[in-house]
Amino acid sequence: MQYASDNTGPVHPKVMEALARANEGYTASYGADPLMEIVRTQIREIFEAPEAAVYLVATGTAANALALACLAEPWQTVFCSDVAHIHEDECGAPEFFTAGSKLTLVPSDQGLMSASDLRATIAAVGAGGVHGVQRGPISITQGSERGTAYTLDQIWALCDVARDLDLPVHLDGARFANALVALGCSPAEMTWKAGVDAVSFGGTKNGLMGVEAVVLFDPARAWEFELRRKRAGHLFSKHRYLSAQMAAYLEDGLWLDMARDANAASAALAEGLEATGHVRLHHRPVINTLYADWPRHLHQRLHQAGAAYYITEGELAGGDLEERLSARLVCDWSATPEARSEFLGFFAGD
Amino acid sequence: MQYASDNTGPVHPKVMEALARANEGYTASYGADPLMEIVRTQIREIFEAPEAAVYLVATGTAANALALACLAEPWQTVFCSDVAHIHEDECGAPEFFTAGSKLTLVPSDQGLMSASDLRATIAAVGAGGVHGVQRGPISITQGSERGTAYTLDQIWALCDVARDLDLPVHLDGARFANALVALGCSPAEMTWKAGVDAVSFGGTKNGLMGVEAVVLFDPARAWEFELRRKRAGHLFSKHRYLSAQMAAYLEDGLWLDMARDANAASAALAEGLEATGHVRLHHRPVINTLYADWPRHLHQRLHQAGAAYYITEGELAGGDLEERLSARLVCDWSATPEARSEFLGFFAGD
Amino acid sequence: MQYASDNTGPVHPKVMEALARANEGYTASYGADPLMEIVRTQIREIFEAPEAAVYLVATGTAANALALACLAEPWQTVFCSDVAHIHEDECGAPEFFTAGSKLTLVPSDQGLMSASDLRATIAAVGAGGVHGVQRGPISITQGSERGTAYTLDQIWALCDVARDLDLPVHLDGARFANALVALGCSPAEMTWKAGVDAVSFGGTKNGLMGVEAVVLFDPARAWEFELRRKRAGHLFSKHRYLSAQMAAYLEDGLWLDMARDANAASAALAEGLEATGHVRLHHRPVINTLYADWPRHLHQRLHQAGAAYYITEGELAGGDLEERLSARLVCDWSATPEARSEFLGFFAGD
Amino acid sequence: MQYASDNTGPVHPKVMEALARANEGYTASYGADPLMEIVRTQIREIFEAPEAAVYLVATGTAANALALACLAEPWQTVFCSDVAHIHEDECGAPEFFTAGSKLTLVPSDQGLMSASDLRATIAAVGAGGVHGVQRGPISITQGSERGTAYTLDQIWALCDVARDLDLPVHLDGARFANALVALGCSPAEMTWKAGVDAVSFGGTKNGLMGVEAVVLFDPARAWEFELRRKRAGHLFSKHRYLSAQMAAYLEDGLWLDMARDANAASAALAEGLEATGHVRLHHRPVINTLYADWPRHLHQRLHQAGAAYYITEGELAGGDLEERLSARLVCDWSATPEARSEFLGFFAGD
Repeated sequence: MQYASDNTGPVHPKVMEALARANEGYTASYGADPLMEIVRTQIREIFEAPEAAVYLVATGTAANALALACLAEPWQTVFCSDVAHIHEDECGAPEFFTAGSKLTLVPSDQGLMSASDLRATIAAVGAGGVHGVQRGPISITQGSERGTAYTLDQIWALCDVARDLDLPVHLDGARFANALVALGCSPAEMTWKAGVDAVSFGGTKNGLMGVEAVVLFDPARAWEFELRRKRAGHLFSKHRYLSAQMAAYLEDGLWLDMARDANAASAALAEGLEATGHVRLHHRPVINTLYADWPRHLHQRLHQAGAAYYITEGELAGGDLEERLSARLVCDWSATPEARSEFLGFFAGD
Repeated sequence: MQYASDNTGPVHPKVMEALARANEGYTASYGADPLMEIVRTQIREIFEAPEAAVYLVATGTAANALALACLAEPWQTVFCSDVAHIHEDECGAPEFFTAGSKLTLVPSDQGLMSASDLRATIAAVGAGGVHGVQRGPISITQGSERGTAYTLDQIWALCDVARDLDLPVHLDGARFANALVALGCSPAEMTWKAGVDAVSFGGTKNGLMGVEAVVLFDPARAWEFELRRKRAGHLFSKHRYLSAQMAAYLEDGLWLDMARDANAASAALAEGLEATGHVRLHHRPVINTLYADWPRHLHQRLHQAGAAYYITEGELAGGDLEERLSARLVCDWSATPEARSEFLGFFAGD
Repeated sequence: MQYASDNTGPVHPKVMEALARANEGYTASYGADPLMEIVRTQIREIFEAPEAAVYLVATGTAANALALACLAEPWQTVFCSDVAHIHEDECGAPEFFTAGSKLTLVPSDQGLMSASDLRATIAAVGAGGVHGVQRGPISITQGSERGTAYTLDQIWALCDVARDLDLPVHLDGARFANALVALGCSPAEMTWKAGVDAVSFGGTKNGLMGVEAVVLFDPARAWEFELRRKRAGHLFSKHRYLSAQMAAYLEDGLWLDMARDANAASAALAEGLEATGHVRLHHRPVINTLYADWPRHLHQRLHQAGAAYYITEGELAGGDLEERLSARLVCDWSATPEARSEFLGFFAGD
Repeated sequence: MQYASDNTGPVHPKVMEALARANEGYTASYGADPLMEIVRTQIREIFEAPEAAVYLVATGTAANALALACLAEPWQTVFCSDVAHIHEDECGAPEFFTAGSKLTLVPSDQGLMSASDLRATIAAVGAGGVHGVQRGPISITQGSERGTAYTLDQIWALCDVARDLDLPVHLDGARFANALVALGCSPAEMTWKAGVDAVSFGGTKNGLMGVEAVVLFDPARAWEFELRRKRAGHLFSKHRYLSAQMAAYLEDGLWLDMARDANAASAALAEGLEATGHVRLHHRPVINTLYADWPRHLHQRLHQAGAAYYITEGELAGGDLEERLSARLVCDWSATPEARSEFLGFFAGD
């Protein structure tokens, strides 16, 4: 009954085995390890992008902030949704790495910006000449922070805005795999073919120990990225242990299998919750995260039994036992039917 | 014959086992894992510092730069040796994390600053009132970048300068364990008892996959450290895998054993080199790094045979085969007598 | 017919005379000039704040950004209105000077934030522990960017929010004098008695050549301010020419006289406009700025005749001659009845 | 007897008159004033650089730091002399404006770097790949901080180093005019013809109230400069008062006349000092600054009489009355023969 986050679960056994295999003898450090060569080839193939610059870092915040720092000047503003991870959950990392760029928030619905809202928000910025900050990159999150995902058409429409205004596009793909399998498209379609310039390609939330790739489709700023990574303390000396994780992740589609399992677990959980008659889903989960609400007394019962998940609106303690509290539940690759049954069991008899 | 660095070697098997053990079920993320509680207790005990704030990051550059950012204001200068890692090998990370502090270089001999040079260097700074940068923290590296280590008396003398001027002291302990076993003192003696305020307590170079602790003896800036770490992308979501490494490292003195093995391997290599009659040691290695020179043709022979180490002065290719080129050789915990014998064998017959 | 801004007008003759008087012989530089002693005393008396730290800079952006940098940590967010000058018109200066703080926008009505909106906006920030940026200073603009001014009660209410949450308060007083004479209160009442910690005390828009004072009621961060000012290139070597302006400004109430004249000119202009029957005022001007709208053809006629002011909504060129375009008109101390009559004359005969 | 600095003296009367003339009616703000058009034309003509981007700021630190920020990336280091104003007297402004660049110091003799020292210093930087900071701009000061000036050949030789390594060159010309008249060359010869890319063209130390021009010979980064200037609070709203000063400065060679007068006053002072028999000049003054030493008791006598200058080595108070203390004396355009005679008179009778 562990639905708090996809970063509370374990690393996939195949990844652990890959780490053990990588732990043999001596290897060049700081990214010059042969495994990194393999990873680079894998990612270029998966993205159908033979020129792409590919780098590994250990956290999603590092991936996002370093990528954005390569796309944004300090006097520019990044356009992102008002619930974007880069805005809400990185303690100002983009502002730090960019040397003081602004983030301009675009209204979102279930985690998704519309192209028209994006366009209108941008239109209101940069008209003041030198007085105001200038228009900078657009950052979109796929899958979103609310458990939804943009369709390919929606990504195209957002990138159209960027194209019209000659702005670069960053994609925060902390849950890239989850969105990809939900859409059933190719990584290229979900990124550069639509107009995305740089991707934070997540692994940590999907079964790795702590690895994210940054993919820059235009390698022009590759050297800048390398310097920024080093300067930020994000270049690993024993880099082979990042490479090993990512190589295992991408081998034989493990990454897609884990994402499918996580999504399926979330979908099954959603169905089960709905079937209880007590739960209102805020939307049908597209990826591995669901938002829903149900009465306080059921929340209390679940928490007493050790269920782990976040209540996003309302307080667990409170007098009105029928008041509905909103919750977020996240399934990772390791979520089991047994845990789900146990969880749903607490709704029975009401 | 792998003497390029102590970050090209493998992770100790006990650490790998600890990672495997940690990979069970669900655990709280972002440093709230129970293993981190154990690590905190271990480090406080080892340092005899029950109030110390203890944090884990994955790279030495992150540890140093975050610690310094908590000690230095942007308009101050950090005093460090002219061969300090923070000056030469971090691509300006201290400048980045501190929002633009200067580094003022103190002359060094075999990697070590003298208290009198430190005092003289500081005296020349800060007399200009508001016009010049202000005096900030002193950063010392123990063991040093040249394979030496300060004696306790020398650390005391450096800290005396800091005390006199009311400046904080940072210790870059990327090779803390190597220096500690060389000195045969306690961690407390080598740090806070002498006057050190913050330590980068290295693990990566000494058999871990990628973990360093930052120890702040005065916990007043602990919350600031946490915010800086997060903001810099150095707070791991799946933090348990950092904790697990460090816990295993500190258990039953594994860290000291590995450091002793590395130092001994380096000492044995130095003796063997000297015995060849071709090699001039630049100093008797105190920790696990040695600097020496020998004729070019022997370097060429070794490199052809696959020996890995850095030539620090001179070019491998060149006409004068008797010209002496300087080299750095580093032994890690896994260095073997067999590799040493093979390496030394190439000096024979000359 | 020059209503574009209060920075397009001339410097008051008395200020020019003071500059000429100051231009005698040699004087200590970098703020050690005797005139600065006079200014410090004047400002402390005017504010009834004998301990206040007082500094001069040449631009409002410098005053605001330096003051905020002393109040905000890089990982904090500044709360300000969504039309705040620091957000819209300083090209990210606060973000630059603070090393990457965020600005969190509070909804405004006619340029004014309500205490309840401020409280609600703050409540939504900082609940995420280390993951989100932390709560930082509140910045209010008095008189506002929309030609209005907070009442003393409103300032109190905003400062109450700050008091409850232990946050510092900055007041952007680019048009401090205009608001002060409009309210008829004392500088102390409008600032520290209500709870304001730091003031950007404007002079440039009110008849000076280019001088703003920064007043820090708590001198604890005075030295930090001095270092930040120098480091930002805002400490003038020939400082006496800043002091001379400010001293003349504050002597015999010149600053209040100029503000009263500017406000009165704006009020008279508003009345005149309303009397034409063509103009809708967006609000009765409280200070020296008014917002209003009237039909396009009248705008076109005025612009053709050389009237200078900003159209804030709509385009001057356009087919529908009756469409109403919004405009901003600003009067400075030198605005004349003649120019007003001429301006209003263009509305006649319609 | 005012030799403390060239920023303690008055503004030239013609400049004051120009300010008075500029103070008529309304003018466009923020650099769009017609006077700025004149200044731009003047500077382009003086420098024979019709494409140059020309901007005004109020302080030398702003000019230097903004220019360097356009030339240096955060992960680069600026090469400058070990007595450079940007290193010693700007409280870290270059580090602030560049978002954390390093300054690497080149040894100097009487304020001047040699091309060979510059080349050797640069050679030691940047060999470490991603680990060390990268090579960035070279900054030279002309006239130097020690009262000397580079010959054209020396500037060429320094720029040759830059050319060979493809590094940009900045010239800190706080005393540009003084050096120019000393060399008797053209501004173009002293800058872009030799290989200089950006100039801080000083006015403040040479009779202005507070204006420096920044001249970028390649206008490619002009827009970036404008945004950086605004973001740093260095764009003046009432910009005409900067323009007016600079226009008057450049009209009819006033700037050259003032520089010649200042240099001549310094030369005469040096001669007079030498003739006293008590003074040892550290070098024949080339511009308007001289360094010399003489016995303590004479310093004491002068200071008691109100003479103003800096003692750069030694303490005024002290037992040994014959000990020689070093001093810096600076003459500005307004230095008089009377003051000189008075000053020299105190050496008589000894």
